[in-house]
Amino acid sequence: MRKRSDASAPLGFIRPAVRAMAGYTPGEQPQGGGFIKLNTNENPYAPSPRVREAIAACATDEIRLYPDPMADALRDAAAARYDLPRDHILAGNGSDELLAIVLRACTDAGDRVAYPTPTYSLYDVLVAIAGAEAVRVPFGPDFVLPPALTGADARVTIVCNPNAPSGTAIAVDELAELSEQVAGLLVVDEAYVDFADDSALRLVRACPNVLVLRSLSKSFSLAGMRVGLAFGAPAVIAELCKVKDSYNLSRVSIAAGAAALADHEATRAHVSQVRATRARLSGRLRDLGYEVPPSQANFVLARRPGCDQRAVYEALKRRRILVRYFATPELYDALRITVGTDAEVDALLAAMEEIEK
Amino acid sequence: MRKRSDASAPLGFIRPAVRAMAGYTPGEQPQGGGFIKLNTNENPYAPSPRVREAIAACATDEIRLYPDPMADALRDAAAARYDLPRDHILAGNGSDELLAIVLRACTDAGDRVAYPTPTYSLYDVLVAIAGAEAVRVPFGPDFVLPPALTGADARVTIVCNPNAPSGTAIAVDELAELSEQVAGLLVVDEAYVDFADDSALRLVRACPNVLVLRSLSKSFSLAGMRVGLAFGAPAVIAELCKVKDSYNLSRVSIAAGAAALADHEATRAHVSQVRATRARLSGRLRDLGYEVPPSQANFVLARRPGCDQRAVYEALKRRRILVRYFATPELYDALRITVGTDAEVDALLAAMEEIEK
Repeated sequence: MRKRSDASAPLGFIRPAVRAMAGYTPGEQPQGGGFIKLNTNENPYAPSPRVREAIAACATDEIRLYPDPMADALRDAAAARYDLPRDHILAGNGSDELLAIVLRACTDAGDRVAYPTPTYSLYDVLVAIAGAEAVRVPFGPDFVLPPALTGADARVTIVCNPNAPSGTAIAVDELAELSEQVAGLLVVDEAYVDFADDSALRLVRACPNVLVLRSLSKSFSLAGMRVGLAFGAPAVIAELCKVKDSYNLSRVSIAAGAAALADHEATRAHVSQVRATRARLSGRLRDLGYEVPPSQANFVLARRPGCDQRAVYEALKRRRILVRYFATPELYDALRITVGTDAEVDALLAAMEEIEK
Repeated sequence: MRKRSDASAPLGFIRPAVRAMAGYTPGEQPQGGGFIKLNTNENPYAPSPRVREAIAACATDEIRLYPDPMADALRDAAAARYDLPRDHILAGNGSDELLAIVLRACTDAGDRVAYPTPTYSLYDVLVAIAGAEAVRVPFGPDFVLPPALTGADARVTIVCNPNAPSGTAIAVDELAELSEQVAGLLVVDEAYVDFADDSALRLVRACPNVLVLRSLSKSFSLAGMRVGLAFGAPAVIAELCKVKDSYNLSRVSIAAGAAALADHEATRAHVSQVRATRARLSGRLRDLGYEVPPSQANFVLARRPGCDQRAVYEALKRRRILVRYFATPELYDALRITVGTDAEVDALLAAMEEIEK
């Protein structure tokens, strides 16, 4: 018998980079009921009735068969909805999978990935998994695009727009300019864009190095189904395809996603309601003394500069209201609050006023 | 404006390794009906009625909420079914995702991944994506474990058992020995094990470097739902968790998988039928002059040494019968044929006899 090498030490077969990292920490998903969940940016309103019908229609023996590896029914629904040919579109198991696919396709160990911060913390995790180098460039005042972003010489530049957790948005013209200035791929992560005034989707045809990511989790109320979409030049989409799992979406996710995209009226009505509630929530939080950047997303960031918000988060949790608290130097003085129904937001505000006393 | 670097060449931001590779080619999934599909090892029988009920029960507004990131309902069902604690189990979006997770967690660029060949061709693709080095060790005669496998000094050694596309199985005692001899992680890919006589699952408690992968696609008739399971030491499972997508299974996949695991009787009856049909199919193919290794899976490999089987594959396809043909030097003289229903297998055999004439 051959002697084992260092890989035989306990966990010696795990990459040092992985052993050293922590995974992504999703927001709490309490499995019991009774919580007002304003912590993971879910939509408080139901998905289209057509989605429920589409899921129920999948409850047949056909489930024994593999799904379409390219999810063409979903891509065709997206093509119709967004007026881009099918070959510009890739479907993902949530836009999280699409982000992972992008790094897998683009970054070798040591390559740079740049993004303005604070932003979606999954980017840090994906960069660590890739063994790439994160170039974290702080946003300018009022979350403007930091000029240093273009100097990073990055393989991939990611702009979350609207940005999480600030809710703020960069103008699409600025993103078009940025796409000219960066050396590599510009990923515009538009998970929250349906709650915003504008989208970078129109850049896709003209800018071969722009990839726009969308999620059906938020505006389409489909977080439980895991459906994301990437829009880009066909040659880029073809390369991304090579590194995705063969059958990355289930039959049910394909059907539910296609049904959601076909019924835009349901989404539009709920988005309008969320935007109205967002305005009210932002105003009331400012009345309470919080700084709240103008949000284009379905959440707001409420900040008291220099003042740790952990106690507020915990006091709300005791009242069975969940909001998102980030224990980081950049964000410890803020809470990220999902825009729920009016009733949920009223309950939150009442609790916060009580906690203030 | 800064000049673009080489990453600005068309597709310059895609890794050279990815540009050079082809993706995995799944078996054909004709979207029209009318085919006898014996090409992707789907189960010809329906899943448990409880699976259909579980899918239908997910058609509610709760789909707006994220799934449980750890899929605990599914892990608990697996824990009960396989008598291992929950912390020994990781759920995946198909066992394909679990294979990808293993390489992502274990291999840096240049690390070695060893496996006996011919085997599941996805391993080659995943190794290429990882920038790792594939150590492909040909099986011995009659698909016995090649002794050279232990000399590869690999981070990860993968044994597909029963093996695809040969259908043959290595004895579990040999795998236990192999786990002592390899330096790194031993992955036993048991996608087809429910059709076999024995499983390596009992090694998991005793051997901290053994990871067993299962799929619900085949024996549980759940290919359309994408549900896989990994069983390993809790410390290994914890490391793998770090590199999975945050919410890798949808609410529906979690529910369907848990329902399937809870109703083992449905699976057992269909597995028995497949094994009986497999024996009949193997015998008839041998009568036709094919070499057919003894199969422990839900497919058989039918080989005519040195004789290209493309024409037979194409003639069957013209008759709307799909089998798997691999255009590789290792396998061009063989067809991999899924064990369908008796009627499907009779149709296949009649067509093959006709083609022979």
